[in-house]
Amino acid sequence: MNAQRNPTTVTAEPGTPFIDIVREFDAPLELVFRAHTDGDLVAQWLGPRAYEIVLDHYDARSGGSWAYAHRDPQGAEYGFRGTFHTVSPELVVQTFEFDGYPGHVALESARFEALDGGRTRVSTRAVYQSVEDRDGMVASGMEGGLTEGYQRLDDLLPTLAATSAS
Amino acid sequence: MNAQRNPTTVTAEPGTPFIDIVREFDAPLELVFRAHTDGDLVAQWLGPRAYEIVLDHYDARSGGSWAYAHRDPQGAEYGFRGTFHTVSPELVVQTFEFDGYPGHVALESARFEALDGGRTRVSTRAVYQSVEDRDGMVASGMEGGLTEGYQRLDDLLPTLAATSAS
Repeated sequence: MNAQRNPTTVTAEPGTPFIDIVREFDAPLELVFRAHTDGDLVAQWLGPRAYEIVLDHYDARSGGSWAYAHRDPQGAEYGFRGTFHTVSPELVVQTFEFDGYPGHVALESARFEALDGGRTRVSTRAVYQSVEDRDGMVASGMEGGLTEGYQRLDDLLPTLAATSAS
Repeated sequence: MNAQRNPTTVTAEPGTPFIDIVREFDAPLELVFRAHTDGDLVAQWLGPRAYEIVLDHYDARSGGSWAYAHRDPQGAEYGFRGTFHTVSPELVVQTFEFDGYPGHVALESARFEALDGGRTRVSTRAVYQSVEDRDGMVASGMEGGLTEGYQRLDDLLPTLAATSAS
């Protein structure tokens, strides 16, 4: 899997509370969607390579909720939690909060689109409660972890495809 | 209860996806919070007087969800649903979607603040997924229903206070 082939595009227009992320995957929508909504799969790719995901729960249905922690190589854990407003194969809408910055919540909306050749585009818009919150998220280096996570997902998808086919 | 005494302030800066709402109530925080988080109470005041609330469920806890419909005098129902990201006496964060405009979700954050004299201020920020969504909500006449709902809450709170005291 050539990680350069599928760039991660991150757009954060100055003065707005939005972050827009577009990423394509060399796998069909069904697999990409499953990798985003099955907690055991999410734990295998989300976030930077150096961090392990410790899953608390990941109840990916409309009206469900989720919580996990990133554990760094020294064992420190950083908790995150949210709810799933909508879970459908075209659209997942969820809330997002870092336990270390309580009371600052984002709303993330991911649209899944089937492309020719069995490929899939995921277009995510995250909206924050203020421009300052958005700027803080950009400054936190989220783009690096996001890009690395999607490259891990690139690596995971062929395994899922093989499992599905068997 | 003098409805003029407690104005509802609605601010929607042009070109932003935010609506800010500030309202004070002549009742202590505990009662105002309960009126916002007990579904049977919410059904007694939320929205315009002409509409009845038909409650589906209102599971007001962090990680819970809610759904209700407004029923107009002709019997037509307009459904709404969302999740509760955070429910605490200082802060309620929830998502909001009108079934008639699917895929367009707002994130609402209500802060409850105790004031002198047993009064309470509720400051709400709603953020939409686009400036267009926000403008559409403002154009829908939400301010009228909001103001009328809060006046109904003014009328309800003395009853709750009497019940609590007994």
